[in-house]
Amino acid sequence: MTRTSSSSARVAVSTVIFTLRADADGAGLMLPLVRRTRDPYAARWALPGGWLDVAEGLDAAASRTLAETTGLAPSYLEQLYAFGDVDRSPTRVVSIVYWALLRQDEVDAQLAAHAEHGDAPDNVQWFDADALPDLAFDHAQIIAYALWRLRNKVGYSRIAHGLLPDEFTLADLREVYESILGRRLDPANFRRQAEASGTLIPTERFRTGSHRPARLYRYNRDVELAERGPLSASP
Amino acid sequence: MTRTSSSSARVAVSTVIFTLRADADGAGLMLPLVRRTRDPYAARWALPGGWLDVAEGLDAAASRTLAETTGLAPSYLEQLYAFGDVDRSPTRVVSIVYWALLRQDEVDAQLAAHAEHGDAPDNVQWFDADALPDLAFDHAQIIAYALWRLRNKVGYSRIAHGLLPDEFTLADLREVYESILGRRLDPANFRRQAEASGTLIPTERFRTGSHRPARLYRYNRDVELAERGPLSASP
Repeated sequence: MTRTSSSSARVAVSTVIFTLRADADGAGLMLPLVRRTRDPYAARWALPGGWLDVAEGLDAAASRTLAETTGLAPSYLEQLYAFGDVDRSPTRVVSIVYWALLRQDEVDAQLAAHAEHGDAPDNVQWFDADALPDLAFDHAQIIAYALWRLRNKVGYSRIAHGLLPDEFTLADLREVYESILGRRLDPANFRRQAEASGTLIPTERFRTGSHRPARLYRYNRDVELAERGPLSASP
Repeated sequence: MTRTSSSSARVAVSTVIFTLRADADGAGLMLPLVRRTRDPYAARWALPGGWLDVAEGLDAAASRTLAETTGLAPSYLEQLYAFGDVDRSPTRVVSIVYWALLRQDEVDAQLAAHAEHGDAPDNVQWFDADALPDLAFDHAQIIAYALWRLRNKVGYSRIAHGLLPDEFTLADLREVYESILGRRLDPANFRRQAEASGTLIPTERFRTGSHRPARLYRYNRDVELAERGPLSASP
């Protein structure tokens, strides 16, 4: 092997952050990308990330590199998958990829705080998950996998926690699901499934307005958010 | 950092293989462990594994190191989680952990073939998942996480494929679930859930015997076995 300077792989971490941005055209999933300033793939867009430091754990490295590149600090990051194909980079790199859901108001508040302190991140731009630019490395494949996981394997509780305020109606939750899945859902079926999931707790409060009052729900904090089971006991 | 010989982490792979061994006392989950022959943790039991070679992908490294240490070759290995706490080893090691389910008859056939060729693996022993010896590194935590995933997140199709023959009755499938979960399940509820899962296909064949004929099912091969979504398209 002459193409690497080392006899083994280097470990990097990257993070996929999804938020839901609502505008006049409806709501859509967005994620932040960082423009690379050096080779390989100089000037291409890439997931926020960086090298694992020898003195930090994987979770800590993901949080640090995300904060350094984007200024974002989600309340939790979940490990998604380790990518380690031999040819994914000119040198041998294994990337441990994390992901998180972040509410738009949290994104706005965190970025406003950075702007106020004059340390707004450079080279970051938010993209529609369905209209990504050319990406560095295998990051297009990584984002496709993260979207698939989000669309197939993320339950009511996690979506509610990650993308909705503390209290929400079932219609709010359904609209978030519809944005993620890109299709309409039957309201009665959705209500039945959401109520049967055991992950949402009805409150005694209702939202009133032009329609009939809609009950507000909150998510059940007893349900494992990151679904790490016994790993959750780790420091 | 003086305690590591390198300025970065080294990448290892390890694999947790579950099989279901039935005997007079019932059925139980078993897994193979390898006795370490050198420090750290010399003479302790550890998961089968080894170092990632710079010229091989993660999946290939998992298959190779599993075959080298145990002689086993599952039809698929699924990535479970990357473990990278700073203090999990005297030097800095990130372990990409894989797992698989293997039927007892597959284990027996593979080990018999090795014995016939005089290359039976050394230092390997199968342990009851509920009665493990003292383990090296954080391997007890890794196995606890794998058991939690198996008990909580593995669907009917995967269990059927991994631990049952090609055709099986719903009673066979329920017995496997009962062994994994360590508790009895209501037959009528189990039947309803399994039939509604969309992952089992009823055949027109029945098992006859002392009870009334029981329909044989096979698993639906269209369901993603390893649940990797778009990653399944990778070579």
